[in-house]
Amino acid sequence: MNKTLVELTPGAVEDSIERLRGIANRTPVISSRTLDRLSGCGVFLKCENFQRVGAFKFRGAYNAISQLGPRERQAGVITHSSGNHAQGVALAAQLLNVRAVVVMPNNAPAIKREATAGYGAEIVTCAAEQREVVTAELIAQHGYHLIHPYDNDHIIAGQGTAAWELFEEVGPLDILLVPVGGGGLISGSALAAASCSPACRVVGVEPTRADDAGRSWRENRIITLERAPDTIADGLRTRYIGKRNLRVMRHHVHDMITVTESEISAAFRFAIQRLKLVVEPSAAVALAPLLLGRFAGADRRVGVILSGGNVDMFTL
Amino acid sequence: MNKTLVELTPGAVEDSIERLRGIANRTPVISSRTLDRLSGCGVFLKCENFQRVGAFKFRGAYNAISQLGPRERQAGVITHSSGNHAQGVALAAQLLNVRAVVVMPNNAPAIKREATAGYGAEIVTCAAEQREVVTAELIAQHGYHLIHPYDNDHIIAGQGTAAWELFEEVGPLDILLVPVGGGGLISGSALAAASCSPACRVVGVEPTRADDAGRSWRENRIITLERAPDTIADGLRTRYIGKRNLRVMRHHVHDMITVTESEISAAFRFAIQRLKLVVEPSAAVALAPLLLGRFAGADRRVGVILSGGNVDMFTL
Repeated sequence: MNKTLVELTPGAVEDSIERLRGIANRTPVISSRTLDRLSGCGVFLKCENFQRVGAFKFRGAYNAISQLGPRERQAGVITHSSGNHAQGVALAAQLLNVRAVVVMPNNAPAIKREATAGYGAEIVTCAAEQREVVTAELIAQHGYHLIHPYDNDHIIAGQGTAAWELFEEVGPLDILLVPVGGGGLISGSALAAASCSPACRVVGVEPTRADDAGRSWRENRIITLERAPDTIADGLRTRYIGKRNLRVMRHHVHDMITVTESEISAAFRFAIQRLKLVVEPSAAVALAPLLLGRFAGADRRVGVILSGGNVDMFTL
Repeated sequence: MNKTLVELTPGAVEDSIERLRGIANRTPVISSRTLDRLSGCGVFLKCENFQRVGAFKFRGAYNAISQLGPRERQAGVITHSSGNHAQGVALAAQLLNVRAVVVMPNNAPAIKREATAGYGAEIVTCAAEQREVVTAELIAQHGYHLIHPYDNDHIIAGQGTAAWELFEEVGPLDILLVPVGGGGLISGSALAAASCSPACRVVGVEPTRADDAGRSWRENRIITLERAPDTIADGLRTRYIGKRNLRVMRHHVHDMITVTESEISAAFRFAIQRLKLVVEPSAAVALAPLLLGRFAGADRRVGVILSGGNVDMFTL
C-alpha cells in the first residue's frame, strides 16, 4: 500500500488551513430565503466563485506548490489543463516565485489562455489528445514537477479547506453537496466533514452524462469514460477519477447522485437571476438537486460548495 | 420648518437597525484583490444585491410600513414604481399583512409586474405619464397611505441601515460611494456615516446623463429634469430628488460626482466577470469611479453600496 495514501487524514486539511491563511480568500457563506423555500431545507452556500482565480482550485494548487522542496521549486512546475486548475497553478507559482508551465489544447478559449498567461505562466499549446504526452515529454526534458489536478494528496487536502471553513462558520451540517469531476474537491471536502461534522452525509453530484465517479465509487474501481463527456459543466469533463480520490471517497462519501443537463441549466439560471451569484455550470451541478426538492426536510441543514464562477459571457 | 425634517438624525437609522433585525438580510461585505489593485485602495463592497427583493429598497419599505398606525395599515398602502421600490413595498406589506397597491406604467416589463404581483401586491397599470395622477385618484377614492420612494423620513432611515451595517462590520472608512437616484439611499447612508464614521467623506455618484442630484446639491434647490434621463442605470431615472433628501445631503454629503454611460457599462461588466457579482447597472454606477482610479491612495479605505442586482438576462 502506498504510504502517502495511508497518511491522508483530516489533519492534512487542518494543516492546509494554516498554510492558506491570508493567502487564499476566506470566501463568504451565503443563504437565501428563496432557496430555502424552494428546497425545503436550510441551505448554506460556500461561495468559491469569490476565491482567487475565481474557483476553489487555487487552494489545492497553492497548498501543493508551497510544500515543494527547494530542488523541485528550482525545477519549476507543470500541469495540463485548460481550466481553473491552470489558473490556480499559475497564480500559486507566481506567488511562490516558482516557474510554471501549462500545457493547453490549441482549441482552448483565448480568454483562458490569457488569464493563465496573465498570472505569469508559460503556455505550451498542442493538439487536445496530445496533452498528456507533451506534458510527459517536457517533464523528461526539463525535470519539471507535475502538479496533478486531483490525484495528489496536497491538492486534495487544499481543496478540503473550503468545506472546513464552511463547517467552522456554520457548524455541523446534515448534508454536504459537492460537484465531482476528477474527485479532488469531494475527497478533500469529505475529509473535512469527517473531522468537523462526523454525522454529515457527504453527497457527490455529477452530470448524468459524466457519471464515471459515481460508478467508480459504487464498483470500487476506476471506470474510464471513452471520451470527454459532453456536458455544459465544463469543469467536470474529466474521464476518470484518481486513485487517491477513489480511496478517500470509498471511506468518507455517503452517496453519489446525478443531475441532467437541463437541471444544471435551470440551477445555473437560478443562481444568476435569483441568488445574484455568477457561478459556472459546474458549480450549478451541486445546487441542482436542491431545486428539485431532493433533500427537502424540516430543520435539515445542507451545505453546498459553489465551486467557481468562471463562465464566459456567451454562456451567460 | 417641517417638524419631521428637523427630527431626522442618525439615531433614526440606528432605530431602524433594530426594526429590521431578522427581517431584512444582513448582507455580506465582499472584498477583491483585483479591485483593490485596479482602484489603488482598499474597497469594501456592501452587497445589497443579496438583499430581499434583490435591492436595498426592502429596508426602507419595511421600515416605513412597519411604523404605520392601525388606521393606516387598515387602509392599505400605495406607491408608483416599476422598479425595486415596488417590490420592496409589496414584500414588506405582505409580511406586515397590509394591503398594497402599486401603480405601474403599462409599458413596464412583464417580469417586474410579475415579481411585484408575486409578493401579493395589486397592480394598477396606466400610461407612464399618468402615474402620479392615477395614484392621487386612488388615494382620494380609497384612503390608501402613500409610501413615497425616497422623500420620506422612514424610507431614508431604513435605507441608511445598509451603510450602518457596513461600518459596523469593517469600521471607519475614508470614503463611502453611493449611487444617487431620488436621494433616499444617499441621505440614509450619509446619516449613518455621520454617526459611525464622522471623518468619512460621503460621495454620491450619478450618471452624467442624470446629474440633477449633484446640481441640486450644489445650488441648494431642487432641479427637475424635463424628462426621465436616458441612462442604462434604470434605477436612477428619477427626474428630481426629494426635499428631505436635499436637506440631509446638504448637511452630510461631501461631494457629488458623475460617470458616463460607457464607464457604467465597464463597471457592470467588471462586476459580473471579475467580481462574480450580479449587480444592476445602477449599482455599477458607484463602482465605476474606482475602476477609473479616481480615489487611488495608499491605505485608503473605501466603501461602496452595491445597491441591487435586479438585471434582466437581456442586459446581461
